[in-house]
Amino acid sequence: MTRSIPARLAAFHANGADRYGVVTDDGIIDLTPDFGPRFPRLKEVIEAGALDELLEAAEGRDPAYREEDVSFLIPIADPEKLICVGVNFPSRNEEYKDGQAAPSKPSLFIRFPRSFVGHHHNLVRPPESEQLDYEGEVTIVIGKGGRRISEEKAYEHIAALTLCNEGTIRDWVRHAKFNVTQGKNFDATGAIGPWLVPFRSADQLDDIELTTRVNGEVRQQDRTSRMMFDFRYIVSYVSTFTTLVPGDVIVCGTPTGAGARFEPPIWLKPGDVIEVEAEGIGTLVNGVEDER
Amino acid sequence: MTRSIPARLAAFHANGADRYGVVTDDGIIDLTPDFGPRFPRLKEVIEAGALDELLEAAEGRDPAYREEDVSFLIPIADPEKLICVGVNFPSRNEEYKDGQAAPSKPSLFIRFPRSFVGHHHNLVRPPESEQLDYEGEVTIVIGKGGRRISEEKAYEHIAALTLCNEGTIRDWVRHAKFNVTQGKNFDATGAIGPWLVPFRSADQLDDIELTTRVNGEVRQQDRTSRMMFDFRYIVSYVSTFTTLVPGDVIVCGTPTGAGARFEPPIWLKPGDVIEVEAEGIGTLVNGVEDER
Repeated sequence: MTRSIPARLAAFHANGADRYGVVTDDGIIDLTPDFGPRFPRLKEVIEAGALDELLEAAEGRDPAYREEDVSFLIPIADPEKLICVGVNFPSRNEEYKDGQAAPSKPSLFIRFPRSFVGHHHNLVRPPESEQLDYEGEVTIVIGKGGRRISEEKAYEHIAALTLCNEGTIRDWVRHAKFNVTQGKNFDATGAIGPWLVPFRSADQLDDIELTTRVNGEVRQQDRTSRMMFDFRYIVSYVSTFTTLVPGDVIVCGTPTGAGARFEPPIWLKPGDVIEVEAEGIGTLVNGVEDER
Repeated sequence: MTRSIPARLAAFHANGADRYGVVTDDGIIDLTPDFGPRFPRLKEVIEAGALDELLEAAEGRDPAYREEDVSFLIPIADPEKLICVGVNFPSRNEEYKDGQAAPSKPSLFIRFPRSFVGHHHNLVRPPESEQLDYEGEVTIVIGKGGRRISEEKAYEHIAALTLCNEGTIRDWVRHAKFNVTQGKNFDATGAIGPWLVPFRSADQLDDIELTTRVNGEVRQQDRTSRMMFDFRYIVSYVSTFTTLVPGDVIVCGTPTGAGARFEPPIWLKPGDVIEVEAEGIGTLVNGVEDER
């Protein structure tokens, strides 16, 4: 059996139940029968620091499911916190369209898990707006909790990596002068996945390429080394005000190139396929459908 | 036994365990022994629509605890959603300080439950800022879930009422151009309580007086009939983008008169006592302490 590197763990629905397991190039090894009684979901696996134990247990086992036969779930279905960082990469062509200096602190907002679907599910365009837009982002999952974590120790608190298509209803983001809450929280307008990759070394985050494609066309592409607020800073800053706990999810900000930036804007429409890809993490793929 | 009106249910810690029960003028009737196996917490009581069943079961029973002997908890410890509405009452003296028209849509933001403490606990002033401020607000708890709930039917979806001191770290609210997330989410800077009052008729919400006092001095006082976005509108608007579920908490916006509005601003300091009172709901009382 050929095992691709890096190791990856997914939450999925198959055979009438929610499950989790190790994803290989040959299919998914179901670990729910063995670990389900101890850890109902991947969140509890992370709370117990048991990602490696699962990977070891999967060694040499045969896959139970093919990727195309399962329904992928959001890796952490109900984190205590799901925090998103606003646009976090400078423009390549100009400093800022409005001529303002770079912000000194990150803009943060919160999304509810129900605003996301899993890998290979369609984003849902609501009848209230045609302005469904994509945002590809690297996403971290907290392993060790803490408050006022220093930047130096921040990476010790990250258990795993995943990706987010931080899909947004643009006109609803501007319903109020402050706060983007409503445009960021329409049910099923974004996606998280495809899986979790255990975080073991800084080179998995420090300078990886992040790309968003729509129907195969590159729309966003940048490297995490150019982030205005890097991962260490984000973990440290967020933990200044709130105690991070295992399973917390932080979506770390998108490069320029969202559909809203085009003139005229290019919104997502039913039938589109969006891919968010990052080196060493994988590719999150989602279609688009109108709400029924 | 004299039972005060209206009936009220509280979550509390006593005798080594988290409990819930009915609060009377003579003390708290503990319902955990009877209902705990079916409903671990008040959230599950609300999901089951069983508030009245609890009240009936409490009839004629003797209180097990005095109010002063229990540690009050936030009524719903982990709602799927905890959404707050920005300032929601017009100024009494002037339209808007910045001369702008009233907003056409409410500003919404999200808080994590760990940013709140229960009745009679101290708000915690963090070392990062002296700008701890109060905001008294009427708070609703969703009973029947739904999406795109009409204003006409909105009240059918409210199970109970409570109060919030939506304590805020003012300077951290302005760390970024958009989104107040960080200044609204410092651990233990706000409070929810004192208890839940079952919602049965419109007059419990439509025109009640809401008052915030600091050390006995009235700082905020207004009537819900003057809200810019009323309760029916809020439930309808929020449910446009996200599916509401039982136990969801919506903090419905504060009157003018927060400490930030004074010239110079008056921040909360250790030893202060803040009371948020609303007709027919009760009085939420909290002190202030420095983080240790």
